[in-house]
Amino acid sequence: METVSENKCFGGVQGVYTHGSEACGCPMTFGLFLPEEARDGPVPVLWYLSGLTCTHENAMVKAGAQQWAAEQGIALVFPDTSPRGEGVADDEAYDLGVGAGFYVNATEKPWAPHYNMWDYVAEELPRLLGNNFALDMERQAITGHSMGGHGALTLAMGLAGRFRAVSAFAPIAHPSASDWGRKQLTAYLGADEGTWRRHDATLMMREHGFDGPILIDTGTDDQFIDLLRPEDFAQAVAERRQPATLRLQKGYDHSYFFVSSFMEEHVAYHAEALYA
Amino acid sequence: METVSENKCFGGVQGVYTHGSEACGCPMTFGLFLPEEARDGPVPVLWYLSGLTCTHENAMVKAGAQQWAAEQGIALVFPDTSPRGEGVADDEAYDLGVGAGFYVNATEKPWAPHYNMWDYVAEELPRLLGNNFALDMERQAITGHSMGGHGALTLAMGLAGRFRAVSAFAPIAHPSASDWGRKQLTAYLGADEGTWRRHDATLMMREHGFDGPILIDTGTDDQFIDLLRPEDFAQAVAERRQPATLRLQKGYDHSYFFVSSFMEEHVAYHAEALYA
Repeated sequence: METVSENKCFGGVQGVYTHGSEACGCPMTFGLFLPEEARDGPVPVLWYLSGLTCTHENAMVKAGAQQWAAEQGIALVFPDTSPRGEGVADDEAYDLGVGAGFYVNATEKPWAPHYNMWDYVAEELPRLLGNNFALDMERQAITGHSMGGHGALTLAMGLAGRFRAVSAFAPIAHPSASDWGRKQLTAYLGADEGTWRRHDATLMMREHGFDGPILIDTGTDDQFIDLLRPEDFAQAVAERRQPATLRLQKGYDHSYFFVSSFMEEHVAYHAEALYA
Repeated sequence: METVSENKCFGGVQGVYTHGSEACGCPMTFGLFLPEEARDGPVPVLWYLSGLTCTHENAMVKAGAQQWAAEQGIALVFPDTSPRGEGVADDEAYDLGVGAGFYVNATEKPWAPHYNMWDYVAEELPRLLGNNFALDMERQAITGHSMGGHGALTLAMGLAGRFRAVSAFAPIAHPSASDWGRKQLTAYLGADEGTWRRHDATLMMREHGFDGPILIDTGTDDQFIDLLRPEDFAQAVAERRQPATLRLQKGYDHSYFFVSSFMEEHVAYHAEALYA
């Protein structure tokens, strides 16, 4: 693992690191914010999964999360959204290939064998983080934006017991019923929709739900809201009697101006679960 | 004037607008954050001048200022750092030409006649803002980062009575004694250093100071600190008995991770002066 940069930030350190990834078969870069408290011992971890076209960097510089993580003594992890670089397949569309890994393990060519973002985020990166930084991997929570909200919800529901809380900003909530989903799940996993079920938050909510609290914010003026389908997820939540707070925020859109506006509440919400 | 974008942000609106600039002889783009209170009437204005290589956008997405401006009911203006586009002279160096206007009116070719950033920020843009938005132009304050800190300090001291307070993050504090300054002032204003005096914060502090409070933060690990020369400005402040708070912040560097870490305090400081 190599250090790309470390910048002091709100009393802690915003680092960027790169390492050879076995899961993705290429170098992967991630951001990690460590609050001041990490000098004295392991701190809880909040994952932030990013959306389409993003790298590890977007949320790190635009979401304004570090200040609240510093206040709460929580670390933030910012993984990349796909494998990248030489030999990694890509597509001309912004929503397939590089920057659009959808947090699945691709079984179909040309995306296999590099596009294993599920294994990367669920297994390899947590192991690397736990071995190298002062992080308490027994206390993890997860959030994300758009495609990253999809990732947060599906990881939280798919890895029972791993995350104490999950939240999301404008998540893709029902990918198997959306143009943000059908195309990508077909490409990465093939046409058999049975394999999509553990990568669809609405279907997973219908089947088993999440053993912890859920917080979701979506803007009423989100220009992609028809692709996100928050109504399907809301229905599934209500049908299951799943403890959750689902909010439609008046006038907000899909941008980081929206994400940053509600970041304080999301971090506080995770802190409550992480310190419970 | 045309609206490029408007995004709801912390209850207010982060807008981006473009207009034909007389001062710069080209289209100019700026960001403007209006807090919710601007719906009900004019609000005070805090200018944020950006540093080398920046556009109107960098601080708007990275400085985390809107949340504190929203809390205080203050508007934020994010001007560009130079003229741009067809017919505008440029240089291969990152620190001269486009992105590096240094907030002066160039008298030397090829920078004249487009590089009139002093007139743009001091005269044209305030007039445009006052005529088009709910802004109380009797209550203005100014801040900036690096080259923009230089701009904030020189505009504040050069326009007596205009700004109620000035602050800066890692400002270029003594350009006529720095490689971040001598090269640019020579290019834009010519070799006669007499014309540089009203664009050098340390010289202006020695000559007349500022009729209001000053707050400056600089990181002890700023990789450009030798170019900023905070020690020269600090000496001039002390010699004049100028009311000021000059802080060296341990471990912070020149990045927006530093700027955002202290933004809350800077906005609160300006709010105190704007609402006095």
